[in-house]
Amino acid sequence: MDNRPIGVFDSGLGGLTAVREMLRILPDEQIIYFGDTGRVPYGSRSRAIITQYSRQDAAFLMSKDVKAIVIACGTASSVAGSLLKEELPVPLTDVLEPTARAAAAATANGRIGIIATDVTVRSGSFQRALHTISPQLQVFAQSCPLFVPIVESGFMLEHPDITKEVAETYLAPLREADVDTVILGCTHYPILKRIIGEVVGAQVRLIDSGRETAAYCRTLLEQNNLLAAQGPGDCSFYVSDRIEEFSKVAGIFLREDVHSSVQLVDIEKYEGAIPWKKTT
Amino acid sequence: MDNRPIGVFDSGLGGLTAVREMLRILPDEQIIYFGDTGRVPYGSRSRAIITQYSRQDAAFLMSKDVKAIVIACGTASSVAGSLLKEELPVPLTDVLEPTARAAAAATANGRIGIIATDVTVRSGSFQRALHTISPQLQVFAQSCPLFVPIVESGFMLEHPDITKEVAETYLAPLREADVDTVILGCTHYPILKRIIGEVVGAQVRLIDSGRETAAYCRTLLEQNNLLAAQGPGDCSFYVSDRIEEFSKVAGIFLREDVHSSVQLVDIEKYEGAIPWKKTT
Repeated sequence: MDNRPIGVFDSGLGGLTAVREMLRILPDEQIIYFGDTGRVPYGSRSRAIITQYSRQDAAFLMSKDVKAIVIACGTASSVAGSLLKEELPVPLTDVLEPTARAAAAATANGRIGIIATDVTVRSGSFQRALHTISPQLQVFAQSCPLFVPIVESGFMLEHPDITKEVAETYLAPLREADVDTVILGCTHYPILKRIIGEVVGAQVRLIDSGRETAAYCRTLLEQNNLLAAQGPGDCSFYVSDRIEEFSKVAGIFLREDVHSSVQLVDIEKYEGAIPWKKTT
Repeated sequence: MDNRPIGVFDSGLGGLTAVREMLRILPDEQIIYFGDTGRVPYGSRSRAIITQYSRQDAAFLMSKDVKAIVIACGTASSVAGSLLKEELPVPLTDVLEPTARAAAAATANGRIGIIATDVTVRSGSFQRALHTISPQLQVFAQSCPLFVPIVESGFMLEHPDITKEVAETYLAPLREADVDTVILGCTHYPILKRIIGEVVGAQVRLIDSGRETAAYCRTLLEQNNLLAAQGPGDCSFYVSDRIEEFSKVAGIFLREDVHSSVQLVDIEKYEGAIPWKKTT
């Protein structure tokens, strides 16, 4: 048993889809969420910058004495996940392995699609994670650069028809490739799940990286004997900019008012190079 | 006469629409362009962060001994333009005043539309600039959060029809307001000028903030006796991230290969608080 909090970080809001699942399946746990709203989006930045930012995000969470870390961001997972797993003294999961495992278990025809940000697609990280599980899988990846701004500006609420047309252009190559499973490789995308589902058809399984990562986080805590004693759990939110806007959108993601528990962090002051010795 | 360079900064690529005009109407001038590609977009950040970034951008240009500075970014102009005009020891123009003057001169019915990023619209800066020129003007502003990612991902090239539908949703309130002039208040938007023009109709004048700002820069140099002796002029490019991608897109914006003249800058090392005494 270990009553220290779990740390979760994301480039902005998307990781809240993982937090929502964690609050459901880990109701006794304290969660500390950091959303890097001052430097979002990560998906259009270079690998060097994403690595630096991810280290700073982890350093902030470590300063809060977390017992485990979840990278709830497809881009940060793809670029910095393996590195942080090596560097950090606490168990860490990114979104890649849990999501890839779920997709490999779900597919019947061995043809899997991935939709994600441009950096995540180009990194090939989901593709590698899938091929590590089974080299026979056929993988088709597609970047969807408008999906994150569509979600963050709320465009899909007012204009679902145009959002669906955008989704149709992005998803056409996956439909042609006859995939039976699609990984939502960016934690913003579950917000567009209904529209994406309509475009690819009900016979295609959608794998939600936030949900799979939350489930794997539970397994990771069990394996390391780190589950908290009985709760009540809760979540504290930290952001690097725009606290008001985060509170508003987080309320929609989580369906509760989080305003009183959102605080501002000067993330630039946390050291990019992590000094800890790994203890596990 | 003054042969020192002119400094231009923008949050990313959009300011190149101003540079293209400057190279045309100021062919004898050396231009130093800084695109903050490591921290783009500014339009979704807080005023405090945008002010800090704008000061750092200006500090970098001042380190290159520029004789004048152009803020070629609607968001930075709206948030930090007045402040930097006070702080800097060289003449500065942002996009607001030249663009507002051109729009006020162009309108016949006194009804002007503004399209820009969310921060620019909410700042009310174009609205104030127009009302300073003529309090009778009726001004209608609309934010278009998908336009920048559409331009930066090249979506409008492959999917002009869907881009036009997005433009129709954003521009509908301006059409209903019967404006006869629309300010393109973000320097990315001239890339969408043809599509925007089709939506609002040929009878509506589009005011290109990049073009108007370049024209005003010429006036500003003349007034301060800062024009260069005979050229040839040229442009050097500096970015804070993703040099390869900038080179590619800049080549499209400027219709020439700029790869050899793009260099990387560590913008975070330039001081946000500017120490200069104003000498003019």
